[in-house]
Amino acid sequence: MAGGYELLKTGGDTKVQSPKSYRITRRVAIGLIACLALVTLSFLHVHPPLSVDLGAQDNHDEDSVKACASPAPPAARPPAPINPWASLTIKQVVQVQKWLEDPARALNLTRGAISKPSDNHIFMIEAYYPPKASVLSYFSSLSSSDIPQKYARVTIHHGSAPEPVVKDYLVGPLPIGSSTRMEHLTEIYHLDAIPHNARGFDTRDWTAPEIFEKMAAPIMEAYEELLGGTPQDTLTTAGSGPFSFDGSFRRLWLGWRRNTPGFFLHPLNLYQYVDLSGTDPSQWDQLKIVYNHQVFDSPESFMEAFHNGSLKRVPVIDPDTDLSYSTRKRIGAQRDLDHLPGPRSVSFAGLRFRVDRDLQYVSWMGWGLYLGFDRDMGLSLWDIRFRGERIVYELKPQEALAQYAGNDPFQATTAWLDRYFGMGQSVRDMLPGYDCPHEAVYLPATTYSTDGLTTRQRAICIFEHDSERPLTRHLGYEENEFGAVKGYELVIRSIATVGKCVDFVFLRDDAENRTLVMITFDYIFHLDGTIEVRLSASGYLQAGFYDGTQGQYGNRIWETSMGSLHDHVINYKVDLDVAGTANSLLKTTLSQEAVTQPWFEDDWGDEVIQQVVTREYIDDENDALLKFPTNFQGAFALVNQEETNKWGTSRGYAIHPGYSPIHNTVVGSKRLLKNAKLGALQSGCLPSQGDRTVLEQHVELQFAGGPPVDFHKFFDGENITQEDLVAWVNLGMHHLPQSEDAPNTRTNTATSSFFLTPLNYFDHDPGDSFTYDDYGVQPAHCLPEHPSPFEYHPAKMFDLDGRPAPASSIENMRKASELYHRIKLEL
Amino acid sequence: MAGGYELLKTGGDTKVQSPKSYRITRRVAIGLIACLALVTLSFLHVHPPLSVDLGAQDNHDEDSVKACASPAPPAARPPAPINPWASLTIKQVVQVQKWLEDPARALNLTRGAISKPSDNHIFMIEAYYPPKASVLSYFSSLSSSDIPQKYARVTIHHGSAPEPVVKDYLVGPLPIGSSTRMEHLTEIYHLDAIPHNARGFDTRDWTAPEIFEKMAAPIMEAYEELLGGTPQDTLTTAGSGPFSFDGSFRRLWLGWRRNTPGFFLHPLNLYQYVDLSGTDPSQWDQLKIVYNHQVFDSPESFMEAFHNGSLKRVPVIDPDTDLSYSTRKRIGAQRDLDHLPGPRSVSFAGLRFRVDRDLQYVSWMGWGLYLGFDRDMGLSLWDIRFRGERIVYELKPQEALAQYAGNDPFQATTAWLDRYFGMGQSVRDMLPGYDCPHEAVYLPATTYSTDGLTTRQRAICIFEHDSERPLTRHLGYEENEFGAVKGYELVIRSIATVGKCVDFVFLRDDAENRTLVMITFDYIFHLDGTIEVRLSASGYLQAGFYDGTQGQYGNRIWETSMGSLHDHVINYKVDLDVAGTANSLLKTTLSQEAVTQPWFEDDWGDEVIQQVVTREYIDDENDALLKFPTNFQGAFALVNQEETNKWGTSRGYAIHPGYSPIHNTVVGSKRLLKNAKLGALQSGCLPSQGDRTVLEQHVELQFAGGPPVDFHKFFDGENITQEDLVAWVNLGMHHLPQSEDAPNTRTNTATSSFFLTPLNYFDHDPGDSFTYDDYGVQPAHCLPEHPSPFEYHPAKMFDLDGRPAPASSIENMRKASELYHRIKLEL
Repeated sequence: MAGGYELLKTGGDTKVQSPKSYRITRRVAIGLIACLALVTLSFLHVHPPLSVDLGAQDNHDEDSVKACASPAPPAARPPAPINPWASLTIKQVVQVQKWLEDPARALNLTRGAISKPSDNHIFMIEAYYPPKASVLSYFSSLSSSDIPQKYARVTIHHGSAPEPVVKDYLVGPLPIGSSTRMEHLTEIYHLDAIPHNARGFDTRDWTAPEIFEKMAAPIMEAYEELLGGTPQDTLTTAGSGPFSFDGSFRRLWLGWRRNTPGFFLHPLNLYQYVDLSGTDPSQWDQLKIVYNHQVFDSPESFMEAFHNGSLKRVPVIDPDTDLSYSTRKRIGAQRDLDHLPGPRSVSFAGLRFRVDRDLQYVSWMGWGLYLGFDRDMGLSLWDIRFRGERIVYELKPQEALAQYAGNDPFQATTAWLDRYFGMGQSVRDMLPGYDCPHEAVYLPATTYSTDGLTTRQRAICIFEHDSERPLTRHLGYEENEFGAVKGYELVIRSIATVGKCVDFVFLRDDAENRTLVMITFDYIFHLDGTIEVRLSASGYLQAGFYDGTQGQYGNRIWETSMGSLHDHVINYKVDLDVAGTANSLLKTTLSQEAVTQPWFEDDWGDEVIQQVVTREYIDDENDALLKFPTNFQGAFALVNQEETNKWGTSRGYAIHPGYSPIHNTVVGSKRLLKNAKLGALQSGCLPSQGDRTVLEQHVELQFAGGPPVDFHKFFDGENITQEDLVAWVNLGMHHLPQSEDAPNTRTNTATSSFFLTPLNYFDHDPGDSFTYDDYGVQPAHCLPEHPSPFEYHPAKMFDLDGRPAPASSIENMRKASELYHRIKLEL
Repeated sequence: MAGGYELLKTGGDTKVQSPKSYRITRRVAIGLIACLALVTLSFLHVHPPLSVDLGAQDNHDEDSVKACASPAPPAARPPAPINPWASLTIKQVVQVQKWLEDPARALNLTRGAISKPSDNHIFMIEAYYPPKASVLSYFSSLSSSDIPQKYARVTIHHGSAPEPVVKDYLVGPLPIGSSTRMEHLTEIYHLDAIPHNARGFDTRDWTAPEIFEKMAAPIMEAYEELLGGTPQDTLTTAGSGPFSFDGSFRRLWLGWRRNTPGFFLHPLNLYQYVDLSGTDPSQWDQLKIVYNHQVFDSPESFMEAFHNGSLKRVPVIDPDTDLSYSTRKRIGAQRDLDHLPGPRSVSFAGLRFRVDRDLQYVSWMGWGLYLGFDRDMGLSLWDIRFRGERIVYELKPQEALAQYAGNDPFQATTAWLDRYFGMGQSVRDMLPGYDCPHEAVYLPATTYSTDGLTTRQRAICIFEHDSERPLTRHLGYEENEFGAVKGYELVIRSIATVGKCVDFVFLRDDAENRTLVMITFDYIFHLDGTIEVRLSASGYLQAGFYDGTQGQYGNRIWETSMGSLHDHVINYKVDLDVAGTANSLLKTTLSQEAVTQPWFEDDWGDEVIQQVVTREYIDDENDALLKFPTNFQGAFALVNQEETNKWGTSRGYAIHPGYSPIHNTVVGSKRLLKNAKLGALQSGCLPSQGDRTVLEQHVELQFAGGPPVDFHKFFDGENITQEDLVAWVNLGMHHLPQSEDAPNTRTNTATSSFFLTPLNYFDHDPGDSFTYDDYGVQPAHCLPEHPSPFEYHPAKMFDLDGRPAPASSIENMRKASELYHRIKLEL
């Protein structure tokens, strides 16, 4: 009778699993990593027991109930037979790749895997989002002649140029044909050229033997004695960014860590500042070594102090110390009733949302939208319509800033802009039943890297969630006063496992990919026309070395580890189209007034102090850099002044704060001087940039001095009344980590959100037009499908010719796919 | 095949319902009000179909699966065999009632139902919460001799006293015996006496025929012509509060409305200021009449203007106008797939939380707590322990403020403190499947009123919720780096349907109880030791009359109706005991510094601008009146300076902002001058008031001039270092209503919350010690119980002798139970 489980009868077709297969399942669930190291391109797909005898309950007699409908989503009906924002297919990418490699292009390309920094190579081939005007025109005509032409955006590292440079190109129209051209994309940037030193990651940086020779070899003895190991055994390293202020150099701090599970929480107190500028690795060198707050200009001076006894040392931790605090292993005893699985959501009558898997189109309860996906920021949402009206043209994260503080060169200099590392690139296959509920529907995504293409089968999940709180509810006693609308929501989710805080990791040869922060991007659709845009963070901290001089920068979380204070700010592009594209920015302010009124009596006096609303349209772009007012006594909305609801009020959508409506604390740091976008603000509002659909550039991290897309330059006094406005909205959190952040940060407080919510958009609440499990809708009663067997899909990889990659090249492809997270240190 | 439902096989014991009973069910679900008008004391308990032929799906063969475990909660193991905060039983109340009525007490009591304002009557008999010290002492000894003695708190309206007065008494110990005494409760108040004019509601106010005679009769002709009806047919009225500044008078504004479903949204523009001071109804009168912004001192002067043509009139709305915008009737077409029920949460292996129904004790995953319930504020939580340690001694809402703005005498003067109206009193039976999910467990609550006792079977619900977002998650490739903790939560909920905005309603004789705002109180327990305290509002607005002079006080939502600007602020008492009762208030501030460091190179300069933490203990009570800093750059926590975690940090619990962390906008309004508690602050922190467990008084609404419990007087410079501290935390929202608030406000944006979350309390994340559906926990597969038949329990009522009330007295008991929400205007 253990567990309160029911015995599943074993007649008929029911599969019964042997105790042996049950044990196998447990091993798989717990020791997934072991399997991952073995699989190549096939699914990890192990069937757990359909039936486990954990006890039975007698006296039931309901075995005549039929099985529920399949939890496959019904087919959707997209507004058009194409997805204008679809990623390039593998076939399209391969076409472009070959076309670029054609000697006729004279690009002198070397494929990434074998190229050197001084070669030219393709960094990225991706879909170029079509201009909004052409999409809107197509959507209104639906004529096939209006279908926007497909273009690729291509980034090439021109390492062999006399002045090495990075260039973006527009290639198209696709498919490749006689009219296909290649055009240097310049007009969208504020910089004439992107210096090669500011380029995106390529594995060539680290394959040069000079790296190990110059950085590590000269101080090997010190590693051993001061840190208790070497890069070949118990140590691993990571780098801090940015690497450059303006692209004129490429330098970073390396910080060392114990090479143990959850190594992010095991920083050590030795730091090396390395210079990787230029394309000739023989010129690369280290510039500074810092150990226990002592600074040295060269390995020689450091080793001299090390040998002559002048170096102030910190005791090395006992090699037998238990390091497992940084693992996710269960520590305490099992909690009461924790041997039982928790509640599980089942759509007994089948799923109520529709999915077109090919077009990546989703609809639910009056909502409909397309999905997009790219390397830089992952999932994006397009053409979001509610009850037939377009509400949002584009909803897409733009940048993710994280800025640290500390008393060591690593933490004090860290300022990330994660677009550089590729939030989309960092999406991993999701765990069904964990990352999303059992009956979620998953969609795939494919991204390009220097060495090939990677497809993740479960990059995006979609599910209907019962918030278990009614959306509206009233208990009245007149007819039609009594009712409830259940709080059903549609959630569209993607999870990026970005190396948010540690990006350069020198690893031993046998080590695997390492990721850090898990950022969950949720788009939550409500029945009343509201969308909650929510972020949740989990995963490991970028911990600092704790030595007593660090208290004002965080909290100690282990013997020699601390959680370092940092801010996260994530910016979203919200291209609302409120009853059309002509919108205005409405600022509402709540304040206090004292008025006298004739009706007041002596008992209270004739003065009343009360709240009052002030409404103001912001006409000048320069005034559209916004912060929420103190005590949130005010709000911002986009409204269409020319379209009113039945009561004469301009129809609008408000940007309503949710969890943690904060902006960046630090202003003026040189490391994010001009490239932090709106980090220090809550949101900004700009006219749509028209044809400039590629507003952001992944290399901005390296351009604090003046980025390729200098966001603040867009605020140049333009009139924004009844224009096609875009709100740029920030989410974020101040993260002062605490002991409970070990091993992993908890999503319940590490979360931030905003709502896009109708503001006098409708004549009344549209959510209320509907009630549930009512009007003839009865709860269904049936046997749901057995919870799916646990399975995990490693990414599928394809070479640049579009063929499934041979096992031999997987290592190289991972190197590219995993960017800075896993760099082999060649000895 | 409609609906995607499965045919339920009809063999064996499966109950099949006839088409007739199915139709009955639909009628019940839709037309609940009709039934409620008919039932007396029996349950409304109609069995819907176990099987409805809405279509079938073939080819399933899983009919050999057993039924799931019963969704009844397993028995709990409370830390003690009593609940020290339990409400009085009906038997105990009756004992006290009889003892008070005994001539030996010489109280000269008349029972409420037949008493006049000039009589003495009992207003309230309720449990008195025992002093904290005695409870803690009992919990540590668990000796039956230490069980805190049970006392009743009794409120008597002494209408017959020479100086009519309200008095609170302590009666006990209980059960009544030779040692039972009655003691005037004075030491907990800052006022010597509570004048009778400031008393709580009693029906005697309105049964005097003088009311109708003086207020309504003289202007009946004007009602008919100006408002399109009379109080006998299409009109209804409501009153605004407060009624007094200091208890020296009792006066209020009446505002008229159309008597139609959702009448709250149908205000009219006639207002009458009435004086109900004193105990002699023949002295009551009206002082002012305001119509369409014109003010009159008497019915005579008003009627004169009405007749002589000098009155500026507003056109009366066409009597055929469709008023249904204020109903919850479905307006639009059914949405796609809305004929199917949504996902439903099922604990296939049985519930994982334990409930002791008699003691009202709940436990789940290491959490354990007792529940309390009272008339004023409803549900409270006591002795909340996590993994064996007491975290919170008491968690209880204290007051709910709502302050309105407007350009008419009704909205402009409205300032509610809802304790007066009784949040607990206003709890109604919940709707299973709507207010809480199908498998929620419900607990009852009983409250006293002048005419009898009311028991609601479903006053509180408890359920485990899968947030469908992992609490922590990491995807790493080292052993034990990879894992997820599912986001299971335990929710404890109660919903008060308070007449928050409309409180005095003169109704026709045949009308029923009318309620307004639904406030959902949620306590959400997380696996990591975090509690989210969350409020959600729905229900009707207190709408204002819209006439073009009102724009700055809200938005128009219908022809002549507007949503009026108002603030809600709800205060919670949070008696945290962090690693013991000796706690300090830690204020953490995040700011910016510029420091120079030796390790910086020419490329970046030697200055770094970064964040820095400042930690400060607030020692003086006067400094413990807190607001969150700008941009939330700081936080507040209670910590125990003498108890540190393994890393030397003082163990603490933080008060972390959630949704809408706001405070009241208006400061200095005479109507909330000294009784708004911490309305204008985010929170305050005070030492526990020791024996003064009854810190609040429901009549405070009437004491803006100086309340019985003058909260700010407690802040008198006491040192609060390592004291038994209590945080008083505010939730709230600025509510600028919009068209979508009709018919009912939506909970998704009308919500506010805070987290109590461990802050270096543990050595590491305790939530992370556990993973789910892992370590041998397999998802269960079985047939869940059929969703419960829809049922609704009207309150059970008992007379003051403890007998089920006879049908004849139900009308009177409702009058008392429903307070100001339903007052018969006697003709």
